[in-house]
Amino acid sequence: MRRDGYPSDPELIFLTDGASKGVTHLLNILIRNENDGVLCPIPQYPLYSATIQLVGGTLVPYYLSEEAGWGLDVKEMRSQVLEARKKGITVRGLVFINPGNPTGQCLSEANLRELIQFCYEEHIVLLADEVYQQNIYQDERPFISAKKVLMDMGPPYSNNVELASFHTVSKGYWGECGQRGAYFELTNMHPKTVDELYKVASIALSPNVPGQIFVGLMVNPPKPGDISYPKFAEESKAILDSLRRRAHMMTDGFNSCRNVTCNFTEGAMYSFPKIKLPAAAIAAAKRAGKAPDVFYCLKLLEATGISTVPGSGFGQKEGTFHVRTTILPSEDDIPEVMRMFKTFNEDFMAQYEGPQSRL
Amino acid sequence: MRRDGYPSDPELIFLTDGASKGVTHLLNILIRNENDGVLCPIPQYPLYSATIQLVGGTLVPYYLSEEAGWGLDVKEMRSQVLEARKKGITVRGLVFINPGNPTGQCLSEANLRELIQFCYEEHIVLLADEVYQQNIYQDERPFISAKKVLMDMGPPYSNNVELASFHTVSKGYWGECGQRGAYFELTNMHPKTVDELYKVASIALSPNVPGQIFVGLMVNPPKPGDISYPKFAEESKAILDSLRRRAHMMTDGFNSCRNVTCNFTEGAMYSFPKIKLPAAAIAAAKRAGKAPDVFYCLKLLEATGISTVPGSGFGQKEGTFHVRTTILPSEDDIPEVMRMFKTFNEDFMAQYEGPQSRL
Ligand SMILES: Cc1ncc(COP(=O)(O)O)c(C=O)c1O
Ligand SMILES: Cc1ncc(COP(=O)(O)O)c(C=O)c1O
Repeated sequence: MRRDGYPSDPELIFLTDGASKGVTHLLNILIRNENDGVLCPIPQYPLYSATIQLVGGTLVPYYLSEEAGWGLDVKEMRSQVLEARKKGITVRGLVFINPGNPTGQCLSEANLRELIQFCYEEHIVLLADEVYQQNIYQDERPFISAKKVLMDMGPPYSNNVELASFHTVSKGYWGECGQRGAYFELTNMHPKTVDELYKVASIALSPNVPGQIFVGLMVNPPKPGDISYPKFAEESKAILDSLRRRAHMMTDGFNSCRNVTCNFTEGAMYSFPKIKLPAAAIAAAKRAGKAPDVFYCLKLLEATGISTVPGSGFGQKEGTFHVRTTILPSEDDIPEVMRMFKTFNEDFMAQYEGPQSRL
Repeated sequence: MRRDGYPSDPELIFLTDGASKGVTHLLNILIRNENDGVLCPIPQYPLYSATIQLVGGTLVPYYLSEEAGWGLDVKEMRSQVLEARKKGITVRGLVFINPGNPTGQCLSEANLRELIQFCYEEHIVLLADEVYQQNIYQDERPFISAKKVLMDMGPPYSNNVELASFHTVSKGYWGECGQRGAYFELTNMHPKTVDELYKVASIALSPNVPGQIFVGLMVNPPKPGDISYPKFAEESKAILDSLRRRAHMMTDGFNSCRNVTCNFTEGAMYSFPKIKLPAAAIAAAKRAGKAPDVFYCLKLLEATGISTVPGSGFGQKEGTFHVRTTILPSEDDIPEVMRMFKTFNEDFMAQYEGPQSRL
């Protein structure tokens, strides 16, 4: 593959109507009953929790480390596997999202190596959700695919660890999520598993043709020398540059707010600030019969019209509260959006905590 | 709805990426474990057998009656339900395909009434696969929807029997199966079931936008007075008229062949002739390690290039053998196709049965 410098076998690439469908196929194959577990990050895009429940398996959570820029903590994973085993659950798969939704982190090569080592030792199939691989907003940590890291590691990893990698036209500078087109690529997958996947994928005889055309365009963009190349290069660069500026405006905006801290959006398209809610706000939420972060998001919506998703929709460490926003508002609107957010947050904190001492 | 003369509630219509996906949602909801059964016709489009297996339920077969033009035999269904119950299986759903695939039959109103009566008595949810509702090639038995029959029956049926009806842009004179667009409509479905369906459908956040546009065009075709109406009326009539002629050519062709009998393709787009295979052919198939109908279809393919699907792919009564073809070859080609088939079949029968006595 052009991206990784390693060849791909077309027989091991499956075209699907969106990455969601590919994920469903894989989880369907991986999970036999409720004693089969799949490690999933918390916080997490809830496709995974919902699908694991639907196919009747058990989600085994591992917490991302907010302090380490939402990195993967292999020690945490290992202890969760042991914990699960005590309950009679066999962990057969591990999902990671890189760049992350809702967390926006880009994983380092060292972190990915640790992860692969862990999956090798524990005989765990790796599901690499890399749908945001083109949405990168910094240069220190470029996207690096699990496949490339795995191949670079050489044997016994490169010829043993079973990996499924997902990509889609829903993201990137395309952002065409209404066009259902995606693929997954299998590496080291047992031939019997591949046969089963082929069977499951064949139940739906008819593919989504326009979606497949989009996938073709995505993996074969215009090349230097092509008539459309200058326009393509200009447009895609403009989109990505603008998203990069927006990522900075959002993160800086959040970090300037009282009781709000936010890791930088290194990739994907989300900002996931932590909101330190005062005890009085938590009590008020309880009286209103709402989770504290839901309470905060609803107040924000009512006061400003800004719609966000409470962190509890993705899972978060007990006692912490988050808000997920996208960095997608138009660049011109973001300063005003952040000003409104800041005013709301200040009023909210003042109401439940009193005036800010630092003021 | 314009089609049935009964209103529809948009809240009870779900847009899906193809009817297959809607069927999967319904079966997912209906089936809790392997003790839940769903009655399915034999022969049958294998979407149902595959999906029931995938979601972990049990298929309870009911045989269509070839002698009665592939009609539904409610006595047969009743005895299958009793049989299943003895094995501890609760029959929760019943699938029927009208017009039929692979059988091409159109069900009569009387037959549909019997079916609804039966589902009412047995508390069975009815899944009406009506994807071929626009593919009708005779005037005696026009398509009539399960919803219309149900509503016409009045209480206690019309307000009790739970029904899901499927339609898609894959069929009709559109035939756009590469555009994933379909819907299902729920009637009398328990509100909790509707909520569950809504949840399952929401896991895939992004709909297939072009497919939905196609669905819109399908249910709202040009009307008299619209600029595009004359062209639309002319084209759709030409397609359907041609298919009707093809249905006759095919059925007549098959019925003129030795040891071949074929019900008329009243609707859908398939011909499903029964082939009486000589004992010597069955023995030869056995020696070759193949099912007898597979053996016949492979010989046909080798001799003529005509590709058909053996009846065993759809299920058939023990000891009978069928071949499924579509009526979709271009009208000009069909006489030659049927001539080649006839020659092959005559040679095949002569080889395994000796020269035809009637000749
Ligand atoms: C992390 C992640 N994975 C998968 C998907 C699903 O993508 P698709 O639209 O291709 O099904 C999304 C969409 O939001 C996502 O955020
Ligand atoms: C009887 C029947 N039901 C459902 C389908 C699936 O249709 P769709 O392409 O909309 O998923 C087909 C397609 O061949 C069919 O024959």
